[in-house]
Amino acid sequence: MSILIKRGDIFTAADNYVADILVEDEKIRAIGIDLVAEADKTIDAEGKYIIPGGIDPHTHLDFPFAGTVTSDDFRTGTIAAAFGGTTSIVDFAVQQRGHSLSESLEIWHKKAEGKAAIDYGFHMIVVDLPDNRLPDLDEMVREGVTSFKLFMAYPGSVMVDDETIFKTLCRAADNGALVCLHAEHGHMIDVLVKRALAEGNTAPKYHAVTRPPITEAEATHRGIRMAAVAGAPVYFVHLSCAEALQEVQESRTRQKYVYAETCPHYLTLDNSVYEQEGFEGAKYVCTPPIREKWDQDALWNGLRRNDLQVVSTDHCAFRFADQKSMGRDSFAKIPNGAPGIENRLSLLYTGGVVSGLIDMNRLVDVFSTTPAKLFQLYPRKGTIAVGGDADIVIFDPNEETTISARTHHMNVDYNMYEGMRVKGTPQVVISRGKVIIEKGHYAGTPGNGHFLKRGTQK
Amino acid sequence: MSILIKRGDIFTAADNYVADILVEDEKIRAIGIDLVAEADKTIDAEGKYIIPGGIDPHTHLDFPFAGTVTSDDFRTGTIAAAFGGTTSIVDFAVQQRGHSLSESLEIWHKKAEGKAAIDYGFHMIVVDLPDNRLPDLDEMVREGVTSFKLFMAYPGSVMVDDETIFKTLCRAADNGALVCLHAEHGHMIDVLVKRALAEGNTAPKYHAVTRPPITEAEATHRGIRMAAVAGAPVYFVHLSCAEALQEVQESRTRQKYVYAETCPHYLTLDNSVYEQEGFEGAKYVCTPPIREKWDQDALWNGLRRNDLQVVSTDHCAFRFADQKSMGRDSFAKIPNGAPGIENRLSLLYTGGVVSGLIDMNRLVDVFSTTPAKLFQLYPRKGTIAVGGDADIVIFDPNEETTISARTHHMNVDYNMYEGMRVKGTPQVVISRGKVIIEKGHYAGTPGNGHFLKRGTQK
Amino acid sequence: MSILIKRGDIFTAADNYVADILVEDEKIRAIGIDLVAEADKTIDAEGKYIIPGGIDPHTHLDFPFAGTVTSDDFRTGTIAAAFGGTTSIVDFAVQQRGHSLSESLEIWHKKAEGKAAIDYGFHMIVVDLPDNRLPDLDEMVREGVTSFKLFMAYPGSVMVDDETIFKTLCRAADNGALVCLHAEHGHMIDVLVKRALAEGNTAPKYHAVTRPPITEAEATHRGIRMAAVAGAPVYFVHLSCAEALQEVQESRTRQKYVYAETCPHYLTLDNSVYEQEGFEGAKYVCTPPIREKWDQDALWNGLRRNDLQVVSTDHCAFRFADQKSMGRDSFAKIPNGAPGIENRLSLLYTGGVVSGLIDMNRLVDVFSTTPAKLFQLYPRKGTIAVGGDADIVIFDPNEETTISARTHHMNVDYNMYEGMRVKGTPQVVISRGKVIIEKGHYAGTPGNGHFLKRGTQK
Amino acid sequence: MSILIKRGDIFTAADNYVADILVEDEKIRAIGIDLVAEADKTIDAEGKYIIPGGIDPHTHLDFPFAGTVTSDDFRTGTIAAAFGGTTSIVDFAVQQRGHSLSESLEIWHKKAEGKAAIDYGFHMIVVDLPDNRLPDLDEMVREGVTSFKLFMAYPGSVMVDDETIFKTLCRAADNGALVCLHAEHGHMIDVLVKRALAEGNTAPKYHAVTRPPITEAEATHRGIRMAAVAGAPVYFVHLSCAEALQEVQESRTRQKYVYAETCPHYLTLDNSVYEQEGFEGAKYVCTPPIREKWDQDALWNGLRRNDLQVVSTDHCAFRFADQKSMGRDSFAKIPNGAPGIENRLSLLYTGGVVSGLIDMNRLVDVFSTTPAKLFQLYPRKGTIAVGGDADIVIFDPNEETTISARTHHMNVDYNMYEGMRVKGTPQVVISRGKVIIEKGHYAGTPGNGHFLKRGTQK
Repeated sequence: MSILIKRGDIFTAADNYVADILVEDEKIRAIGIDLVAEADKTIDAEGKYIIPGGIDPHTHLDFPFAGTVTSDDFRTGTIAAAFGGTTSIVDFAVQQRGHSLSESLEIWHKKAEGKAAIDYGFHMIVVDLPDNRLPDLDEMVREGVTSFKLFMAYPGSVMVDDETIFKTLCRAADNGALVCLHAEHGHMIDVLVKRALAEGNTAPKYHAVTRPPITEAEATHRGIRMAAVAGAPVYFVHLSCAEALQEVQESRTRQKYVYAETCPHYLTLDNSVYEQEGFEGAKYVCTPPIREKWDQDALWNGLRRNDLQVVSTDHCAFRFADQKSMGRDSFAKIPNGAPGIENRLSLLYTGGVVSGLIDMNRLVDVFSTTPAKLFQLYPRKGTIAVGGDADIVIFDPNEETTISARTHHMNVDYNMYEGMRVKGTPQVVISRGKVIIEKGHYAGTPGNGHFLKRGTQK
Repeated sequence: MSILIKRGDIFTAADNYVADILVEDEKIRAIGIDLVAEADKTIDAEGKYIIPGGIDPHTHLDFPFAGTVTSDDFRTGTIAAAFGGTTSIVDFAVQQRGHSLSESLEIWHKKAEGKAAIDYGFHMIVVDLPDNRLPDLDEMVREGVTSFKLFMAYPGSVMVDDETIFKTLCRAADNGALVCLHAEHGHMIDVLVKRALAEGNTAPKYHAVTRPPITEAEATHRGIRMAAVAGAPVYFVHLSCAEALQEVQESRTRQKYVYAETCPHYLTLDNSVYEQEGFEGAKYVCTPPIREKWDQDALWNGLRRNDLQVVSTDHCAFRFADQKSMGRDSFAKIPNGAPGIENRLSLLYTGGVVSGLIDMNRLVDVFSTTPAKLFQLYPRKGTIAVGGDADIVIFDPNEETTISARTHHMNVDYNMYEGMRVKGTPQVVISRGKVIIEKGHYAGTPGNGHFLKRGTQK
Repeated sequence: MSILIKRGDIFTAADNYVADILVEDEKIRAIGIDLVAEADKTIDAEGKYIIPGGIDPHTHLDFPFAGTVTSDDFRTGTIAAAFGGTTSIVDFAVQQRGHSLSESLEIWHKKAEGKAAIDYGFHMIVVDLPDNRLPDLDEMVREGVTSFKLFMAYPGSVMVDDETIFKTLCRAADNGALVCLHAEHGHMIDVLVKRALAEGNTAPKYHAVTRPPITEAEATHRGIRMAAVAGAPVYFVHLSCAEALQEVQESRTRQKYVYAETCPHYLTLDNSVYEQEGFEGAKYVCTPPIREKWDQDALWNGLRRNDLQVVSTDHCAFRFADQKSMGRDSFAKIPNGAPGIENRLSLLYTGGVVSGLIDMNRLVDVFSTTPAKLFQLYPRKGTIAVGGDADIVIFDPNEETTISARTHHMNVDYNMYEGMRVKGTPQVVISRGKVIIEKGHYAGTPGNGHFLKRGTQK
Repeated sequence: MSILIKRGDIFTAADNYVADILVEDEKIRAIGIDLVAEADKTIDAEGKYIIPGGIDPHTHLDFPFAGTVTSDDFRTGTIAAAFGGTTSIVDFAVQQRGHSLSESLEIWHKKAEGKAAIDYGFHMIVVDLPDNRLPDLDEMVREGVTSFKLFMAYPGSVMVDDETIFKTLCRAADNGALVCLHAEHGHMIDVLVKRALAEGNTAPKYHAVTRPPITEAEATHRGIRMAAVAGAPVYFVHLSCAEALQEVQESRTRQKYVYAETCPHYLTLDNSVYEQEGFEGAKYVCTPPIREKWDQDALWNGLRRNDLQVVSTDHCAFRFADQKSMGRDSFAKIPNGAPGIENRLSLLYTGGVVSGLIDMNRLVDVFSTTPAKLFQLYPRKGTIAVGGDADIVIFDPNEETTISARTHHMNVDYNMYEGMRVKGTPQVVISRGKVIIEKGHYAGTPGNGHFLKRGTQK
């Protein structure tokens, strides 16, 4: 199978030029001016942008949480991802308390096999790490699961104490894994939540009120310091606000390996969403909550300045009708999470590139190249270069669409960006040399996505 | 009983002038030029400095710790304090785990009664605070014990988790108490200590190595943030290093009530003390440990700039012969603490005033006035002013002495400053209108010190 | 002549207590409880605050500027000052270009002699300093004029280049003088003014638009750096905004002697004053201009934190009717300056103490004690202490008044605070032992104010 | 003419992969796996690095300064550059005082024509800019000279005042030029130099002593602020120290277009060079001077963090024998400048990549890609991409050489790095499709370098 893409406007994280691309089997074979080649399929890409397929390193498919399970599984979720120009994900497996990490990994392998439409890897969420289970971390690394996530929030549930975090960081410093932290000060939040409920403040908007930015910034600061002492890299998931960003920013001058991602909802929405009538605010109940309007400016600036390196989706879909509604009487019972795996590219392009806050090179970088490098998929994934996997998005920078739950492909009954007009659409998406999205239809085969065994930090 | 002090060079936290002082009964009655008065005793203070008696808000007398008890009790400790120009202390009572705070307070009242040579108050160390014990905090406030101390270090012993700290801060925001924090990240330190011991690093110097400045700075930062969310003042005890100071400094611009004390050993000694031969380093095993030479500069600068407001001693004496020696095989078993209640004034004067780092007004401020204000003893204590308690030090700025365990009055067999030559000596010390130190002798009566019922934060 | 002030509530920069004060001749003789003394005059001060007379180190009386002369001379200006609780000023003499400093000083001595109602000193404004005139600076110091002011603004007029500033700082490092800087980047402002006028923007509000905070902050930063290299102290006059304050604040941690004053108009007014109809905005045309509302918070915070040490008035009165009106066609022709010598104390008390931003001790400090210390008038001036000059204000903290040009004593036809309701009034003002203000009347004799020969920086 | 480069290890600013490159005429025609093509010349690059030819945006060839002329002209200088892997330079034309910019540009065109071995562009140094000459700036932009340099140092020579700088920045904000600043506070330095000479301190080392880092940092801060008010981008040449870097770093968060370059001598040497015996220190007399050892760490860190974007050489060669020696009696008479155009790549590779401070992508970025982008030569220059100029370096990462004046190709009798062992050597250098360096010999033709008409800032 070969594809010849003609005269596309190619963007990498650093470069921009017009050329032809020849794909053979699963790889990019050649790039050139007026390439002469016989290909099974030729695509005229004149006037279109060619970018590497996206890497989304933060998704929760088929994920058990708060007594329910996320509504997108590996089939629906990865197809939706493909529609949005994403050709690889790194999803979260979660340790069962008291069980070995490999037992949990096995469960996740089964969830994904035969279903995934695009390639996928796993992080492992650690909830319980007595000293005798420390070797489990090394085993995960050998299995290609080279990143661990720990929660500084949710006491009584997945939260671990600082001893566990610090020990994991110390181990990661040795075995080359990357520790990912959910940074919120769980204890303060818990007291604030109890106080709010005791005062009768049960509406969705109190979810945001009881998780002020300082609780995220504090945990971010603490995580950075623990990583410094451990001599380990650290990666903050879903950074949402200026205060936490400032902690990352200050640290990066003196501490070499501090990384953070943000998400499209933090870049695009503000906390007025919680002021909507009735229970509508529940749609936006995710952690951290959506912040102030001005935090958006700080986050875009952070992306531009490389204080934030990645934009992921934290896709964690719960249906509004029968899942979010579990919290009608108390915001504390609303399953935390929101869908978005399909909308990342258009939101980044519209909010970032069209508005002049970042350029296309930077979009490619945070959407694909840096996630691939940080999570050890590069150079196989993450760029348009000869020899790499042919994960390619042909993107029309001019086509406008309206985001809506009626038309999206995620298996969830609402969209956080309902009615938003966005510019720029993936027209063709190629995964390992096969066209899987074309003319608005899924043209692939679930199960063609492979598990990505990832490497370790250099 | 009346005393007329003639022509002393009077220093307050702001002023400096030469005048006569008339003391009647326990109070300062008048200050004037050539006061005409018939007094029981007249002291010629020409050429001497007159300063308010010191307030030492951090002492551990008769304190049970690490399976032993500090060697100075309320008699020996307060007499030593008086020799050093200190006329009030605030000592630490400690909650017995599982018991009410009032039970513990009762024990401490008994320890002090009939023994104290100078006035005293108590802080209460909280180790265990289920929700149903929160009203105990209010009771303490009513008893005049208006400050609580919590430990962020020593997991498995006195350390409390962030939930306890945050709840105490929230309660203090309501009842006007002041929360004092021992800021070190206990979990990181614990892992580092275990690792050091596992590697066979048991000598006293590893005490310092396993408690790096970043562990103190992190905890300081965290305490500041919890106080901010709680809307409560916070006071950091024994701040030892530039990194922690920077946290305090940055916060004080935006957060009104962040306070910190340092101690003479952090201002005067550096971590070369741990490099001495044999077990000598154990004499300096206190928490936080003694830091780098250049940290001293930062601390003096912090005192000058008012980023540090108080100099206390953290007097916590253990005999070298039979108490410190418990840790000969492992630095982790050395009782943490060091003596110093007697040396504060001379060290501050020599290291600070003589060397030009602070002036006499600032010395008075950190030695007496601000501790009196912060711990709600002012204006009864803390200055030389008409109407206040006659707690007065007549200080010879020129007399030089050599510090030594052979001549000091603390009940402990070593002195951290052994052999150090200092300038400036308290010659006469007056406590509530009575001369208790004169001509190098204790002239008072143990038990004359009264319990100081303290007020709340304004 | 003796005065006995009974039971006043005395405030110094550090202390607060109730006592009697005995004044004899020009000095405070004694302070005590129930002082028994025969005095020529006894004042019952129960319930009143007793504070030291204010020191205003920034006034322009009888000052030639922009082709006119300020409307208050040494008689009217100092009487107005006394009504406001100020008992000493340091006014600005200005070098005549091409003339020696002593010639200019002579002129100012003549302006003040026989007219001043309170004591006064001089700074010298240097406009022209070839190398051969450097010894003039030393001569001024010998004459007790121990501070020099230089302008970084007004190119073509009083502005000097950085070479002159740096050379003056180097000389001051040797002779103990204090260099005061008017910090605004004159060149940028000049270009902006020309551009505004070219665009037809001639109204008073463009005065503020063409002097943005960054122009003040830049000059402040530059002045601090030049002082650092010279090894000299530096004092910034009329600091007006958060950005400049931040420069001072950051520098004070590493550079020992950086000082700054702000003024009541920056603490109290915001730039909406320039939006008034017609030419009203001209009343507020002073340099720097009045800033944003939120700058006020930063300045009060700076006062509280001691990043600002002094509040002066920068009293520089021009009549609205026939002086300000010179700029009806162009804001650039409005004489820069505004009156305020009389209103400092009430504004500080109302805006600072009543609203809880600073306490009374801090008010005394910035109003009197620190100006006295910095400009070398202490301990003769600047506090309530035995042996000092009896410059005393008896202040009623509860009396409310309304500020108005109809009732003020300044010789100018408007008041920036017209109609503002303030709390706290000086009831009796004593200057060197004589009552000069009582029952709302001036009871002194012009000419009784003496020249204050000031000392050098320690 | 075509060249096929086989199996090179290609690095761009973002990517790294192994492929073949086909060059036809002056351009890169194709990149692919096992490219099949008939080429005039085939180069086996297996095991070699392929990087884009360097852009050196800071050179002084045939440059009149301090009464002499730099020893490298456009022929010798550009050949030496080519040996060092540099295929484009942007050199400095300098305005003759009182003359138009176009007159000066004409002179420089003549200096370069027929001599340059590689492509070249010009910046214009502005020394004299009355309002009526402002349109000259626009003319330069039309001529493709789209960057201006101004000096904040050298009063009485090329220094301009802040009015000139600010007006140039304002004009550049309109016409899209980039203003480059030499940031040192000339007035302070001048006073310090005079004082040093007056004290008899005439040796080369006083060159460094009289230009302390704070003088550079201050000017950097000032330039940033002027650019902010003007709304213009700004580029700081030869940033040398941590203090100046911090100014750039802080500004880049809030000010979008602040750029700075550093040079290999600041990254590699420290001020101990000035302590050498005799007059040796004169070899290192350049401005700013070489700084402390620890400044190097800050600069490398700044490169890594993208607070510094470019490494240029500031090549400004004066012979030691008869040019530097003009300052034997006074360091102030030593011509300021040092050679280095040939050594940039090896020094960056050895000091940065081999030691792990930056990676190869970052080397390519600061050596070629970002200079090309900032100075508007991209995408024609600055990367390895299809369609771009075939300016290619085949670099052997393992070959070690010793830097020496005996073997270098610069026309100057010393080398700052004499005897330094470096790793990594350009083996083949291709300029616009022609091999100009091969097997250690120059294989090109002087005059084949073309003038590069550059574009404006976006």
